[in-house]
Amino acid sequence: MDTAADTTAMRRAITLAARGLGSTSPNPVVGCVITDAAGTVVGEGFHQRAGGPHAEVHALRAAGERARGATAYVTLEPCDHTGRTGPCSQALLAAGVSRVVYAVADPDPRAGGGGDTLRAAGVRTERGLLADEAEAGNAAWLTSARLGRPYVLWKYAATLDGRIAAADATSRWITSPEARADVHRLRAEADAVLVGSGTARTDDPQLGVRGIDGAAQPLRVVVDTDATAVRPGARVLDATAPTLVAVADDAPAGHLPEDAVLRLPRAATGRGLDLDALLEALHARGVRSVLLEGGPTLAGALVAAGKVDKVVGYLAPVLLGAGPAALADAGITTISQALRLDVTETVPIGPDLRVTAVPAVPAPARKGN
Amino acid sequence: MDTAADTTAMRRAITLAARGLGSTSPNPVVGCVITDAAGTVVGEGFHQRAGGPHAEVHALRAAGERARGATAYVTLEPCDHTGRTGPCSQALLAAGVSRVVYAVADPDPRAGGGGDTLRAAGVRTERGLLADEAEAGNAAWLTSARLGRPYVLWKYAATLDGRIAAADATSRWITSPEARADVHRLRAEADAVLVGSGTARTDDPQLGVRGIDGAAQPLRVVVDTDATAVRPGARVLDATAPTLVAVADDAPAGHLPEDAVLRLPRAATGRGLDLDALLEALHARGVRSVLLEGGPTLAGALVAAGKVDKVVGYLAPVLLGAGPAALADAGITTISQALRLDVTETVPIGPDLRVTAVPAVPAPARKGN
Repeated sequence: MDTAADTTAMRRAITLAARGLGSTSPNPVVGCVITDAAGTVVGEGFHQRAGGPHAEVHALRAAGERARGATAYVTLEPCDHTGRTGPCSQALLAAGVSRVVYAVADPDPRAGGGGDTLRAAGVRTERGLLADEAEAGNAAWLTSARLGRPYVLWKYAATLDGRIAAADATSRWITSPEARADVHRLRAEADAVLVGSGTARTDDPQLGVRGIDGAAQPLRVVVDTDATAVRPGARVLDATAPTLVAVADDAPAGHLPEDAVLRLPRAATGRGLDLDALLEALHARGVRSVLLEGGPTLAGALVAAGKVDKVVGYLAPVLLGAGPAALADAGITTISQALRLDVTETVPIGPDLRVTAVPAVPAPARKGN
Repeated sequence: MDTAADTTAMRRAITLAARGLGSTSPNPVVGCVITDAAGTVVGEGFHQRAGGPHAEVHALRAAGERARGATAYVTLEPCDHTGRTGPCSQALLAAGVSRVVYAVADPDPRAGGGGDTLRAAGVRTERGLLADEAEAGNAAWLTSARLGRPYVLWKYAATLDGRIAAADATSRWITSPEARADVHRLRAEADAVLVGSGTARTDDPQLGVRGIDGAAQPLRVVVDTDATAVRPGARVLDATAPTLVAVADDAPAGHLPEDAVLRLPRAATGRGLDLDALLEALHARGVRSVLLEGGPTLAGALVAAGKVDKVVGYLAPVLLGAGPAALADAGITTISQALRLDVTETVPIGPDLRVTAVPAVPAPARKGN
């Protein structure tokens, strides 16, 4: 039975976990809090970066001998395998922890099973405390682990009347400096930032994270099917971060740096690349979360393919009356086919609004837990 | 000097005033609270309907003899003229009120001056307490009085990606039943509901208020320049409320009920009618507030003409990727010309969001007070 003290400790662990967002990939974010028999916190930790110690190890180190007979609260099931570090289940046993409470089961078949191992060794082991909160904090990694493809967050910035640019294609700036700074936070939390050829051609974006100390730079990915949009000297090819230009198998890409070219099959129907192949290639490179920044055509293709897991819209209190919309060609022709979402948050960001929503129909990812 | 008790009384008067919204036109909404020397409320009232007693008279009746030496709090400067009822300044004097606090000056040259009359008669008279709140509560009437045209509130309902209908023009229902009920409240508060010919043709809307007990039905107005959209039997011509079909001077309107036809000049440039003439004609009929319900072309023309005083957008968490936008042809071609607004409120309405905004540049109306 979980007490208020259990809840407090787990919520603290979830808060700690969030500190790792953006730097742990391809690993999840994990937080751990250890309390002694009196309920006093004797150790805390979070997973800081892939290859580094897991959250449990940080917390156990902090607790030292006081871990004996203690309770460990972990946001994700302790791992049971030896990767770049040893299994956390063994570390918890070795330290003499007598009770382990974890929020969410590990869906990774290689890493999971830590709960069973602990239980078999006589440790009181409980699952599910604050599972929804912990799940939300780890949504990208969990979705990726369950679906075997990166989590896709589509971000757009539009006027109240739904325009992402004026009739003459000018768009600097529709949203406020505050909203643009917030987008850099989203970039910092993502493993990769993705744009289509139209955006690359029109905006020549650099796609790096700016203004956030110590932020990891995400991989930059441009879908440039015919290899016509990204030219030598494009800002996306600068030294800020690695870049992939995804082009069709048959596209002439000699003008691009060889290590930047990602060759993929064309889509079986319609224009563009095979998006499953794109996501698969990114997943194989350890990309667990993608921030899709446009344009409308690529966003439409990913919506049509059911690959958008979350939508973040920055709505500026501006009217234009003309200009392109944020989303195009999503394969929806009549109202009954519309993609219905649930709004999960609405907050003011400077003078703008940020609306966050997720598909209303539970994605297959959600059935797993 | 205003005390906390003054503020409390004035805020109550503002709350009372709001009860008259939708039934006082062409008069303003006004609330009045009378307190005795000890600060006890001895009378309250609000203007309920045009032709009926003003707020002050209701409150004085309730107070009776206790009005002698009392303070009257009024949301709008007491009138100084004899219309369908006598001047409130005289009623306050006759009742022996010794202090009058009003929030907003009356901009109507025929009715204003009550403050001066009271002051000249030796009553302590103060202006400006909670002026912003009282102004907001009476925005439609004050704007109308200052500009000599009806206040225009543009309402639209769109998806998160800015579509008001799907590619095949289907749009029932993008927003929720809660949002649609909220629109009926907006209709009930407006003197007239306005749509363009495209909306009339596509949706055959009835435009009446439904689901609100005792609501006054607004005048229904369709801009049908060439007299081709509203056909005999159209729902907007039913018996719910009076209807005006605004047509060009030269349009063949023999198929329309004679008393429903409003003949107006065509716009000097572009398509459609002379919108100044339309607003003038409505104002002359006592219309102080107009709820503009679309479509995109008419909304664009009114935005372009600078005649939209407030925007209420119902945003449904839905994606379409195709279909018309809420606003078209607003005369804006580049981002620097965009109409900038200030968001004044964002609230969830069922699963949808309602965003309210006003033009960021102070309208001439705002300079008056």
